[in-house]
Amino acid sequence: MTTKPLFNKTAIIGLGLIGASLATAMLDKKLTHEIVACDDNADTLKTAQEIGLISHGSSMLTDVLQGCDLVVICVPVQAVLPIFRTLAHAKKSGLLADDCIVSDVCSTKMNVITACNTAQDETGIDLNFAPAHPIAGAERSGVLSRKADLFVNHALIICPNQADDIYTNKIIDLWQNIGAVVSLMTPQKHDEILSLTSHLPHLLSYALTYQLAKDDENLNIFRYAAGGFRDFSRISASSPIMWHDIFLANKQAVLQGLDDYQAILNQLKSDIENDNSQKLLETFEIAKNAREYFGRLLIEKEQLKSDK
Amino acid sequence: MTTKPLFNKTAIIGLGLIGASLATAMLDKKLTHEIVACDDNADTLKTAQEIGLISHGSSMLTDVLQGCDLVVICVPVQAVLPIFRTLAHAKKSGLLADDCIVSDVCSTKMNVITACNTAQDETGIDLNFAPAHPIAGAERSGVLSRKADLFVNHALIICPNQADDIYTNKIIDLWQNIGAVVSLMTPQKHDEILSLTSHLPHLLSYALTYQLAKDDENLNIFRYAAGGFRDFSRISASSPIMWHDIFLANKQAVLQGLDDYQAILNQLKSDIENDNSQKLLETFEIAKNAREYFGRLLIEKEQLKSDK
Repeated sequence: MTTKPLFNKTAIIGLGLIGASLATAMLDKKLTHEIVACDDNADTLKTAQEIGLISHGSSMLTDVLQGCDLVVICVPVQAVLPIFRTLAHAKKSGLLADDCIVSDVCSTKMNVITACNTAQDETGIDLNFAPAHPIAGAERSGVLSRKADLFVNHALIICPNQADDIYTNKIIDLWQNIGAVVSLMTPQKHDEILSLTSHLPHLLSYALTYQLAKDDENLNIFRYAAGGFRDFSRISASSPIMWHDIFLANKQAVLQGLDDYQAILNQLKSDIENDNSQKLLETFEIAKNAREYFGRLLIEKEQLKSDK
Repeated sequence: MTTKPLFNKTAIIGLGLIGASLATAMLDKKLTHEIVACDDNADTLKTAQEIGLISHGSSMLTDVLQGCDLVVICVPVQAVLPIFRTLAHAKKSGLLADDCIVSDVCSTKMNVITACNTAQDETGIDLNFAPAHPIAGAERSGVLSRKADLFVNHALIICPNQADDIYTNKIIDLWQNIGAVVSLMTPQKHDEILSLTSHLPHLLSYALTYQLAKDDENLNIFRYAAGGFRDFSRISASSPIMWHDIFLANKQAVLQGLDDYQAILNQLKSDIENDNSQKLLETFEIAKNAREYFGRLLIEKEQLKSDK
């Protein structure tokens, strides 16, 4: 842990919920002197400048890189390759400092690391890339939805590109100062776990909301939905482009998780068809106990947060 | 609407979350002079008596029926047949008054009406049954989880046994006084709609939580789950016996809904496998728009509640 700023000038690429929340937390904790941003949306940059979140913004990445010692990529996961290419070329030309660290917050890690390696191989440049993923989010998006404590006591997964390099250590230091609980794992393991805890629930929620909505007459059906459906379906309001990217980027693990899920659904279906009461009750008991265990983890997390 | 008590003595059969919340709302709104209860759990009855919710309780249904002009069945949906039989025999013997109304709060309607008809046919007694279902609930259960305003601005579905009979009208009056929004529909339509808005989400949530929990090592996986999974899986903590009963009682509609859901999942799977970006984005957009529409309905409901 450190109390002086870890970074001088940080560039956030993509000022959505996660990018803007990270910027806010870094400023609150004095972890960077200055933040600049690149975003496609001019209004977002204008707003971010007006509220004092960034000192400078541009839709051109090369406009903001001068003098940065940290660049964090916060865009949909299929959009990373051109960014890595631009960063590599900026380093090659001297626009981006040699010792600048590149990190990210992407929900998939294998495809992001592959994209970085591609850009590095093409240019012969080392981007000092430390891949990271904060396990936090919300179905709302945009700079005005940012939350200063979004990451506090939330898991943060780092997938070190090289073991124990100084860049990875500095990113660990950054997130620990923000209040996240850092774990290290391989990108394979990360993508496998997240396919189950995050990607699959989003897919299943989208599917049910689509089922209820697919003809107009059915919108009336929502009048007869209560709290269970409300919570189950909340994540169906998430950004389509962001989740489209995640499902395609983590295709293999998502499809494997979906196969296993469909096998369980088929078993439940057969248990219902055949009045297999004992099997149904056992399955629901296991799920209930697991959910209550998860609920206790969440309560601990909240208590830790309020103790801080 | 009426201001004087609609009922003199109300028996609640099953003092769970719904039964106890109904009892509380009826007392708050002075819709009954007195409430008695039948429940298997002696502690529940003791607690309910100590907190002044009921004047008398017993695990024997026949112990509480004397003098009742309303009986509301609030038990898991597969447990209703012996209750209807006891009520019919109590009417036949004169223990239960001829003009006593029987109603329920069950999540399925076809099987409950069939059970009532069976008991009526066996005894030649008319139970004055007005089937009802308040669309409200929570994953927590028990008398101490009751909420006085659980039903305010929530949908309440009545499936009239006979059209426009005085018993049905009195039950409509009861729920409108409690603050529910009453709709009439056939039991077939009710079971079909609820299979999609309530039963299916519970089954899908149980299935995913089970998938994550099915071997012990996996419990660690919950450390890497965030708000999306939290909300999606909340209903997995619901009562296994209650939901076991619902899936079996509404088997046909649940299996039909599950078939349709599996077809959508298979389509999404194929769209992911084949990088069908346009189709994925369209599906997610439709779901997002529908969820946002549902979100606006919920906000209206909350505003109505706070205006009251």
